[in-house]
Amino acid sequence: MENTAVDQNSLEDLLSESHETKRATVDKMEEILYKPFPVLDHGFIRVVDYMGDDSAIVQAARVSYGKGTKKLSEDRGLIRYLMRHWHTTPFEMCEIKLHVKLPIFVARQWIRHRTANVNEYSARYSILDREFYVPSPENLAAQSKSNRQGRGGVLQGQEAADVLNTLKADSTQCYDHYMQMLNLNDETNEVLDESRQGLTRELARMNIPTNFYTQWYWKIDLNNLLHFARLRADSHAQHEIVEYAKVILDIVERWVPHTFESFMDYRFNAANLSAQGLEIVKRRLRGEEVSQENSGLSKREWNELEEMLS
Amino acid sequence: MENTAVDQNSLEDLLSESHETKRATVDKMEEILYKPFPVLDHGFIRVVDYMGDDSAIVQAARVSYGKGTKKLSEDRGLIRYLMRHWHTTPFEMCEIKLHVKLPIFVARQWIRHRTANVNEYSARYSILDREFYVPSPENLAAQSKSNRQGRGGVLQGQEAADVLNTLKADSTQCYDHYMQMLNLNDETNEVLDESRQGLTRELARMNIPTNFYTQWYWKIDLNNLLHFARLRADSHAQHEIVEYAKVILDIVERWVPHTFESFMDYRFNAANLSAQGLEIVKRRLRGEEVSQENSGLSKREWNELEEMLS
Amino acid sequence: MENTAVDQNSLEDLLSESHETKRATVDKMEEILYKPFPVLDHGFIRVVDYMGDDSAIVQAARVSYGKGTKKLSEDRGLIRYLMRHWHTTPFEMCEIKLHVKLPIFVARQWIRHRTANVNEYSARYSILDREFYVPSPENLAAQSKSNRQGRGGVLQGQEAADVLNTLKADSTQCYDHYMQMLNLNDETNEVLDESRQGLTRELARMNIPTNFYTQWYWKIDLNNLLHFARLRADSHAQHEIVEYAKVILDIVERWVPHTFESFMDYRFNAANLSAQGLEIVKRRLRGEEVSQENSGLSKREWNELEEMLS
Amino acid sequence: MENTAVDQNSLEDLLSESHETKRATVDKMEEILYKPFPVLDHGFIRVVDYMGDDSAIVQAARVSYGKGTKKLSEDRGLIRYLMRHWHTTPFEMCEIKLHVKLPIFVARQWIRHRTANVNEYSARYSILDREFYVPSPENLAAQSKSNRQGRGGVLQGQEAADVLNTLKADSTQCYDHYMQMLNLNDETNEVLDESRQGLTRELARMNIPTNFYTQWYWKIDLNNLLHFARLRADSHAQHEIVEYAKVILDIVERWVPHTFESFMDYRFNAANLSAQGLEIVKRRLRGEEVSQENSGLSKREWNELEEMLS
Repeated sequence: MENTAVDQNSLEDLLSESHETKRATVDKMEEILYKPFPVLDHGFIRVVDYMGDDSAIVQAARVSYGKGTKKLSEDRGLIRYLMRHWHTTPFEMCEIKLHVKLPIFVARQWIRHRTANVNEYSARYSILDREFYVPSPENLAAQSKSNRQGRGGVLQGQEAADVLNTLKADSTQCYDHYMQMLNLNDETNEVLDESRQGLTRELARMNIPTNFYTQWYWKIDLNNLLHFARLRADSHAQHEIVEYAKVILDIVERWVPHTFESFMDYRFNAANLSAQGLEIVKRRLRGEEVSQENSGLSKREWNELEEMLS
Repeated sequence: MENTAVDQNSLEDLLSESHETKRATVDKMEEILYKPFPVLDHGFIRVVDYMGDDSAIVQAARVSYGKGTKKLSEDRGLIRYLMRHWHTTPFEMCEIKLHVKLPIFVARQWIRHRTANVNEYSARYSILDREFYVPSPENLAAQSKSNRQGRGGVLQGQEAADVLNTLKADSTQCYDHYMQMLNLNDETNEVLDESRQGLTRELARMNIPTNFYTQWYWKIDLNNLLHFARLRADSHAQHEIVEYAKVILDIVERWVPHTFESFMDYRFNAANLSAQGLEIVKRRLRGEEVSQENSGLSKREWNELEEMLS
Repeated sequence: MENTAVDQNSLEDLLSESHETKRATVDKMEEILYKPFPVLDHGFIRVVDYMGDDSAIVQAARVSYGKGTKKLSEDRGLIRYLMRHWHTTPFEMCEIKLHVKLPIFVARQWIRHRTANVNEYSARYSILDREFYVPSPENLAAQSKSNRQGRGGVLQGQEAADVLNTLKADSTQCYDHYMQMLNLNDETNEVLDESRQGLTRELARMNIPTNFYTQWYWKIDLNNLLHFARLRADSHAQHEIVEYAKVILDIVERWVPHTFESFMDYRFNAANLSAQGLEIVKRRLRGEEVSQENSGLSKREWNELEEMLS
Repeated sequence: MENTAVDQNSLEDLLSESHETKRATVDKMEEILYKPFPVLDHGFIRVVDYMGDDSAIVQAARVSYGKGTKKLSEDRGLIRYLMRHWHTTPFEMCEIKLHVKLPIFVARQWIRHRTANVNEYSARYSILDREFYVPSPENLAAQSKSNRQGRGGVLQGQEAADVLNTLKADSTQCYDHYMQMLNLNDETNEVLDESRQGLTRELARMNIPTNFYTQWYWKIDLNNLLHFARLRADSHAQHEIVEYAKVILDIVERWVPHTFESFMDYRFNAANLSAQGLEIVKRRLRGEEVSQENSGLSKREWNELEEMLS
C-alpha cells in the first residue's frame, strides 16, 4: 500500500509521543493508535482517538441503576445483560475516531449512517490523488441471476481481463483529463499552460469516477458503531464495505472485548424469529411435522427459516 | 428537460385525484404538488407531500407558551418573534417530502445534512440512466486565484470548448463501458453476448463519474430545511447546489409565506457582528474614526466587516 | 375525562372544516383527526396531522430499487419484505403529529426518544392546571421482590387506601402552595394579595410533583414511532407509558394497516435468539436432549429461552 | 456540599491512577478530571472523560481542506476562521463526558438538547436521596411584570420567608411520604412494616417534586456543547441552568482555549442584525438620522436594536 494520506514524518512523531493521563486507557488500542490497517488496494482505517472502555459502559449503567446494581457486580455479566435486553444507552458512553481512506462508492453507502461526525477531504479545495480502486481478480463478480443486488460467480478469462482493462483505462483517462482541465501537471502540480485559466476545482472533480479514493475523519459512539458493523459486515452487504466493517470489528475486539463478545452472541450471530417462525419452532419442538403448506409462511420466508435452522 | 424519472402516466393519475381532508391544506402547494421544477440540465425538484402551514407553527408555539400567548394574537408577529429569538422547535412541526434528481457530486454535499430522511435510487439494484450534467457555457468557471473553493471568470474560446468536449466524451465513454461491462444493450437493456456473464451491478457502477444523475426522496422538517437553504443558497456555496436551494426557497415562500419572510429578514439577509465588530460599529456611531490599525481586527476580518457595512 | 387542554370550540371548528387535497389521505385517520383518545385519568392522545400511508412507503422503496422492483408488485408483500430485512428508511417517509397530555414522570421517559420534534407546554410562561395522576386501585402495584424495576401484586386494604390518600393529599397541597407562592387565586387566576410580588413562575413550578400532567405536540416518523411502540408497549415497560403506547399502536393500525401487520409479526411478537440459543434450538430439532447444564447458557438465560419456546 | 453521588473512595482511586497514552492530552483537564465543581445547593458537574483538544479540530479541518490549507498554518487563526464562517464539523471531532447532578426541573430543560448521549439515574430501580433544591434568598425572584418567562425583583421579608418555608416543608413531606409508601426507613433503607408490601418504586417516585436532584452521565461533542452553552448561559435562560452552563464554559476554556476565545467573540458576545437592522446601521453610519417611525421596525424590534447598539 502506497499511502499518500498518512504523512510518515508526522506519524512517527505521534508514535514517539507519550502522555500521562488519568483517563481510562486500553493497552491494545495504544498499540495500534495512528497505525493504518490496509483495506482493499489503496484504502485504510486507522484509530486516531478513543474514549472509554468496557468499564465505562458498566460505570454508566450503574449510574442509571444506582444502588440497585450491587448484585450485578461482575462486569462481563452486566454487559451481556445490557446487550441482551437492548439497553443501548450505556454503549453510547464510548466513542472512537477513525481516519478512513475509501472509494467514493463505498463512502456513499457509509455516509447513510447519520449518527456520526464526519470531516471529508474536499475536492472543492484540494486536488485529488491518482488513486482508484480496481477489484482483485477473485472479487470480479458476475451479476447474480436470482438476486438483483447480489453477486454470482467470478468473471473468467477474456471477460475478466476486459473488465479490468476497461476500469483501469477509464480511470486513468478521466484522471488525466481532470488534471488537464485543471491546467495542472500531474507530477509537479504546476501550471501546464500559462495562456489558459484552468477549470475550477469544484467543477473538474465531476469527471472523476466513483472508484476513486476519498478520505475522512469519522467519529461515532460504540452503540452506533456496532449497528454499522452489524449491517455492513453482513453477508448481504457489498464485499468492498464488508472489508472495512471487518477491520472495524477487529478494532472493537481490541477495544472492548466483553462488548464485542456479547455483540457477536446477541446481535451478529443471533437470529430473529418472526411470530409465525416462532410458532413453527414451537410446533416442531412438540414433535409436530410442519411443512411449508401448513406453516402459514410464504415460500420465500419458509426457505429463509429453513436456512436459519439448518 | 427530458424527464426519465417521473412517469407521465402516473403523474397524470396523481394530478387528477382529489381527496377530502380535515388537515391543514395550502392552496399554493396543491397547485404544484407532484410537478417537477427543472434544475440544471436534467435535474428537478418536486413536492411529493407536505404537512402543516404557518398556522401549525403558531399552534405549536401556543402549546408551549399556553395561556401566556393571548396577547401575541397575530400569527405573523408571533412567527417573526420566534424566528428572531431562535425559538426553533415550532418550525420543526412542519414537514415536507421532495423528490429530487441531482448529479452525484451535488448529492454528496447535500447528504451532509443529517437531520433528514432519504431513499436514494440504488445502482446496486438497478441500471443507471445515460444522464449526466454538463455546465452551460456561462457556468464554466475558472478557478479563483484568491479563494481555493471559489470561482474566477468564465472559461473562453478554445479552452471552454475543450472542457465541454472532454466532459461529454468521458461521460459518454464511461457509460458505454458501464453497459458493456454489464453485458447489456444500451437501448433495449437486453443481454449483449450470451457467452458472457456480465459484471455485477454493484461493481459496474463504480466506472460512473460523479456528474451522472441520481435521485432520491428527501423528507425534512421546516427548521432543518431553512438551515439547509441558508447554507446552500449562500453565495459561497457551489453554483450547482445553489440552483437547487433557490427552488427550495421558492417552494418555502409558497408553503409558509410568513415564515419565509421572517427567515429572509432574520437569517438569510441578516448579518452576524462579532464582539469586536459590534464594538467598532458602536464607536463609529458615536462619531469616532476607526481604522483597521486601531480596530483590533485582522486585515481579513476588517475587510469582511467593511463589505458588510457598505 | 375533563379535558382542559382541548378547547371544545376550536375542536368543533376544526372538525367542521374540510379541504380538497391531492395528497395521500387515509379515511380511517380522517375519522379520528383532532379527537382525543383518553389515556389514564386525565391524559389523552390525539392526531393533529399525518403525512403518507402504506403506499408512500412502497413508493419510496421503489425509488431506491428503481426498475428492479417490477416483480415485487404487491404492496403488502413489499412492506413485509422491507420490515423483515430491516430496510427501515422507507418507513421514515411517513410522519405523524400527536398532541399528548401525560404525567411528568411519563414525559421524562418518553423524551428519551431523541429522534422526534417536541413542543411542550412551558410552566416558565404559563400556569399549570390542577390535574394530577392517581392510579386506579387495580394499578396500585407493590414492588416486585425479584425485579427491581418491576411490579409485584396489587396493594390491598388499608395500605392501598393510605397510599391513595397520601398521593391525593400531597398533590393537592403542593398545588395549593404553588398558587399561593404565585400569589394567584386558584379559580380566578387573579392576584391574591396586592401587597405581595408573587414568586416567579419558573421557580414556583418546582414545587409540583411529577404526577402532574403536562402536554406537548410530538412529531415523529413512522419508523421511529414503531421503535417507540416496541419499547414502550413491551411488558417490561411501566404500565402508565404502556397505556399510551397501546393507543399509538391502535392509531398505527388505522393509519398503515400493512405496516402494522408486518410490525407485529417481525418485531413486536418476534423473538430474538442468541447464537447460543439458536444452537440449542437446532440441537433439539435434531432430537438431542439439551439441559441447562450442557447448554452453555447461564441459568437466567436458560430460563428466558425456556419461556420464549414454551 | 454533601455529595452523596460521588463515592469518595472510588474518587481517590481514580485520582491516584495514571496511565501512559499516545492520545492527545490536556494538562488543565487532567487537573480537574473526576473532581466535582459544585453548582447550586447540592448539584455538581465533573468531567469523567474527554477526547481531543484544539489541535484535533485543526487536524480534522486539514483533512477537509487537504493540501489547500498550508497557508493557514497557525492553529488559532484557523480555529477563528472556522468559527466565523460556521464550519462547524471540525468542532464535532472533540467529545466530553460529564457527570452532572441537577434538579429535575433543570434536567427537563437540559434534555431538550437531543444531540447527546445520556444515562440517567433511574428511580424505577433505585431509591432517590433526600436532596432537593431551595434557592438562596438572593435568587428568590418575583415574577416579572413585563416578561412572562422572566424574573422581576427579589422577594422580601415575610413573603420570602414564607416561600422558603413552603418549599422546604413540601419537599420534606413529599419525601417522607415517598419513603413511607415504599415502606422503607429513611435512614437505614430497611423495611418499616413487615405486614405491608410497599408501593412499587416506579409509582412512589411520582410523589417527588421537580426540585429534587437527579443525576446523569452526559456525553456530547464540542460543537453541540457550545450550542448548549450559548442558549443556556444566555441572560434569558433560567438562573438555575445558567449556573450549570457557566461551569461548562469554564471547563471549555480549560479544554480548548482557542475554541473558547473564538466562541466568545463570534457567538456568545456577537450580535445578530436583521436585514432591516443592518440597513438602519448603514443609514446611520452615512450620517442619516433614523427614528423608530422611519425605520420600518416595530417598537419592540427598535428597542432591541437600540439596546444592542448602546
